[in-house]
Amino acid sequence: MKPSLLFQLFRPPFHRVTRLSSRFTHANSFALRSHTCGELRKSDVGRKVKLSGWVQFQRLNKFVLLRDAYGVTQLVVPDEKLDILNKIRNIPLESVISADGKVAARPPGQDNPKQLTGEVEVILDDIEVLSSSISNLPFTVQESPKVKESLRLEYRYLQLRHESLQRNIRLRSEIVMKMREFLVRVHGFVDIETPTLFRRTPGGAQEFVVPTRTSGKFYSLVQSPQQFKQLLMVGGFDRYFQIARCYRDEGTKANRQPEFTQVDIEMSFTTKENIQRLIEGLLNHVWPEDMGRIPIPFPEMTYKDAMKNYGVDKPDTRFDNLLQDVTELAKASEIFRLFGSSEIANFAAIAMVFKSSAALVSKSAEESLLESAKMTTDKTKLSFVLIRMQDGNKWKSSLTKKLTQETMNSIGDRLGASAGDVILLGLGPRESLVPSMGKMRLELANHLETLGVKLRSNTNNFLWVVDFPLFLPSEELDGGPLQSAHHPFTAPRPEDEHLLRSSPLDVRGLHYDLVLNGSEIGGGSIRIHQSDVQEFVLKEILQEDPINLLHLLKALRCGAPPHGGIALGLDRLMSIICETKSIRDVIAFPKSLDGKDPMSGAPTSISEKEKKMYHIGVVQNK
Amino acid sequence: MKPSLLFQLFRPPFHRVTRLSSRFTHANSFALRSHTCGELRKSDVGRKVKLSGWVQFQRLNKFVLLRDAYGVTQLVVPDEKLDILNKIRNIPLESVISADGKVAARPPGQDNPKQLTGEVEVILDDIEVLSSSISNLPFTVQESPKVKESLRLEYRYLQLRHESLQRNIRLRSEIVMKMREFLVRVHGFVDIETPTLFRRTPGGAQEFVVPTRTSGKFYSLVQSPQQFKQLLMVGGFDRYFQIARCYRDEGTKANRQPEFTQVDIEMSFTTKENIQRLIEGLLNHVWPEDMGRIPIPFPEMTYKDAMKNYGVDKPDTRFDNLLQDVTELAKASEIFRLFGSSEIANFAAIAMVFKSSAALVSKSAEESLLESAKMTTDKTKLSFVLIRMQDGNKWKSSLTKKLTQETMNSIGDRLGASAGDVILLGLGPRESLVPSMGKMRLELANHLETLGVKLRSNTNNFLWVVDFPLFLPSEELDGGPLQSAHHPFTAPRPEDEHLLRSSPLDVRGLHYDLVLNGSEIGGGSIRIHQSDVQEFVLKEILQEDPINLLHLLKALRCGAPPHGGIALGLDRLMSIICETKSIRDVIAFPKSLDGKDPMSGAPTSISEKEKKMYHIGVVQNK
Repeated sequence: MKPSLLFQLFRPPFHRVTRLSSRFTHANSFALRSHTCGELRKSDVGRKVKLSGWVQFQRLNKFVLLRDAYGVTQLVVPDEKLDILNKIRNIPLESVISADGKVAARPPGQDNPKQLTGEVEVILDDIEVLSSSISNLPFTVQESPKVKESLRLEYRYLQLRHESLQRNIRLRSEIVMKMREFLVRVHGFVDIETPTLFRRTPGGAQEFVVPTRTSGKFYSLVQSPQQFKQLLMVGGFDRYFQIARCYRDEGTKANRQPEFTQVDIEMSFTTKENIQRLIEGLLNHVWPEDMGRIPIPFPEMTYKDAMKNYGVDKPDTRFDNLLQDVTELAKASEIFRLFGSSEIANFAAIAMVFKSSAALVSKSAEESLLESAKMTTDKTKLSFVLIRMQDGNKWKSSLTKKLTQETMNSIGDRLGASAGDVILLGLGPRESLVPSMGKMRLELANHLETLGVKLRSNTNNFLWVVDFPLFLPSEELDGGPLQSAHHPFTAPRPEDEHLLRSSPLDVRGLHYDLVLNGSEIGGGSIRIHQSDVQEFVLKEILQEDPINLLHLLKALRCGAPPHGGIALGLDRLMSIICETKSIRDVIAFPKSLDGKDPMSGAPTSISEKEKKMYHIGVVQNK
Repeated sequence: MKPSLLFQLFRPPFHRVTRLSSRFTHANSFALRSHTCGELRKSDVGRKVKLSGWVQFQRLNKFVLLRDAYGVTQLVVPDEKLDILNKIRNIPLESVISADGKVAARPPGQDNPKQLTGEVEVILDDIEVLSSSISNLPFTVQESPKVKESLRLEYRYLQLRHESLQRNIRLRSEIVMKMREFLVRVHGFVDIETPTLFRRTPGGAQEFVVPTRTSGKFYSLVQSPQQFKQLLMVGGFDRYFQIARCYRDEGTKANRQPEFTQVDIEMSFTTKENIQRLIEGLLNHVWPEDMGRIPIPFPEMTYKDAMKNYGVDKPDTRFDNLLQDVTELAKASEIFRLFGSSEIANFAAIAMVFKSSAALVSKSAEESLLESAKMTTDKTKLSFVLIRMQDGNKWKSSLTKKLTQETMNSIGDRLGASAGDVILLGLGPRESLVPSMGKMRLELANHLETLGVKLRSNTNNFLWVVDFPLFLPSEELDGGPLQSAHHPFTAPRPEDEHLLRSSPLDVRGLHYDLVLNGSEIGGGSIRIHQSDVQEFVLKEILQEDPINLLHLLKALRCGAPPHGGIALGLDRLMSIICETKSIRDVIAFPKSLDGKDPMSGAPTSISEKEKKMYHIGVVQNK
């Protein structure tokens, strides 16, 4: 998005203002300034003003560039004002001053069209140094985006002054406010805070634990308000939302934070489709205008189709290059003999074509692509080849020896490939091969785009992915109980409910994931509201100890309305809107990748007194 | 506040609706109902409607009272509809149904003026039982306010259906929304989320600790965003707010929750008075209309005057009966001889009068009052008497033997007391006596009000208490370092700053407490923004290890604007607005007094696997 949006945020609000004094002040109300540093224009010439901010730059002991969150304004020391000169002469950059003066037009030819205030300057009457900075700052605000992250996070308050972070954090506030206006003012939702100190939720992510003053008793920090929002529905709050802080201890997974924020929504007496339409309306309402309108309703794709065509349950539909099943064609050659008998049973061949890309993929890029694809093959034997198409359907590939020309012809035809195209072909057991091909599709696309090929459309492609299986096979080797694909509260599709007992792996859930440009930004479902169904799923299918969810089971027996909801990942959504590389750039004080805070040094050791108070000892595990 | 306010909340919103479909739906959008159960009126007669809700009552197998969060509507089974009759005949109360039917006027004489929908009923076409309740619920929704709290909290979702909790929680949402509109839309504040997993703050309340996967390293759950909001000011976010979740481990203090919510605000380039005016505007903006306007600006009282006149730093100014210093008058008698020499040095006599109350205070009430006053006397010798004034300034009291008639006359005159009044007189060392007299003032007032005496005015008395001392003497007997009266970041009053080195106990801080009807609902201050002053306070006065706040000290050296802010206790504010006895009645899922959740059983034990993951063992302390 364009930086100009930042300044749009500070236009007078569209909200109808009631009970306000006649003097409308907005960002300057209750503050020791008459204007922000981004506010003065030619129409203000002659006006007496007071500005406060940081010294960004000075030159010739005459010009000072004063910065605040809203922009920069040039201050000018009149030649005769020796007292000001003395105050300003040796002041370190990033010191804080307030300045009184009069707005003047800049001399002819000295306008700065890059600055919003570039047509004017302030001729100083006086300044006050409010706080002097040290002269040896670890980095300047302007260079902060390029500083290595550990140093940036240690001096986060310096980086926060940079216009990129000001824009991201302020836009986040604005988007959250618009969400609230839409949910509360337009659709009558109620903002309800739910506890974060709770008891462990069975299944799901690892939760942080919090010792209490009762020996051996711990709270768990909630990974989401899931149970509470369902209990609110049972409690008659039929339209709930919360911008909810959630906690997950995911160890060292990339791009995750130990605490994160989700837009949490739940409704009673509704349907999957109603919730989808609500969310489409919500996102349409908050979407920044300069990013273009988003077309609603969003398209819907089944999990099965997503896996088949994109090899992933969160497809990036901004480009095609779909996965194509060429298993039958490949079987015509003897190719599957390369694999052991255990793989042959489930053998598949999957291919995709990237047009006119053969000359762009170097040998080393090819190797790195195939190498990284192999790294994803966990315990299974997969083969990948990259084929550069030559005239006459000739393949330039090590594989050509093992395929008949007929097979190559038929695969090439199926893909519509011609000379100069690249074909990616993968061979192996289907359930491992499909996700690997999905990853290769993204990686090759990323590689080509770094070379300047324009594959992805300039759109924001929202997509609902639906009809996920309700359960997944156990991850344990000895075949333990099934696992929830999402969580144990998702309702089955009504037409599949009869399969719960006979064939649970075939039951599809009323779950919906919201995907934006290949990132999952939300997920939700219609929940089970019948206590007997919930009990059957927990006890018989998932084989969970019901003690952990007894309160929910009891609640469902006390008159539970049908209900469903969704949670949007706010950090990731903002990261996409702000086009940042990391969610850390849309969070004011993020933790580093390993969950540390380089600024304060958290986490730290605790005192013996605290250990005693919480009845814990530190154990050194090897 | 009146119950009618609940329904005002669901009027069409005043917010200007953009990009909405022409069909304005509000609380019924995206829901399987045409109307809520509180919505139908005589003007709807003839309309086909669909309602969904809970069966609150049924009689004669003909009338069903259907309830949702918005009200109740009477449904009528037509005599010929045997299918409906069969569905409804044995349905337990609190089952969830949806009902299709046609609105009809009630037969003449059968209107129910207590119900908003009391002029109409819905003649049923069909119903669907969505969820059948068990028939032996632990209590009915209607009787829930009278059920003992542990049972109510165990079945919180049942109690949440009661109109009182629906009103409290929904009003809380509405007031928070109005706060956001005022801060964001009117005054350009930015809503910024700050971490809750941080490092221990020196001083202040006990913080919960959270073990991590790094052996011996713990996060602390923040007791407030204090440091982060100051760092945001250093980072150029000059107008910050957050509805912030905070954590304090206060053991078993009454009316506290381990997690609570504060409205957290901070501004740069501002003054104490500006922040006070901002908060007055904020509260005026959100104050429910049916509670009457609140007069702004709020009066201001110094800490010294509050202690002198009310014996407490959060005076309830809705009634007078002020503390009066009669030390000199009492000294005229030999009364101080009752005390040891160590008390005499600081001896004080403090009295107050309650007019025409002598006949109302029974002997047993007197004893219990004096007894509880004595319970507050920690390690000091105080004496209290309650005097019933008789004609001719005669005191009916055990003390009369020890006072000359002259002293009694002069004290009675000073207090303006006459026959039939009650005088409370306390004697002892001043610093212990004053708070005890403050408590007796409140207790006697409460006692008289339970007897029907109207002492307190029907107003909402906001009050700023200012000029607190910046430091307090050490609580340690051997005279350790001074302690912060509030926190180490509060700035001294500029005119007292020169006393920091010479006489720190005489320094007044730029702190302000906001008091409403004798409850502290907020507190804030102008902060120290000069790194050298902050360092002096931390190192030299408080003798804190600066390692714990090094990040803040470093930040103040990098160009820190003058700044200040405030935090309002949302739970307590809502409790006062909703006139509830406990903050637990304005929180959806509160913990019990001992920090437990009777619904889920939290806190619980954790697994050996988790103990190993977090490198902790449970230690049994005796």
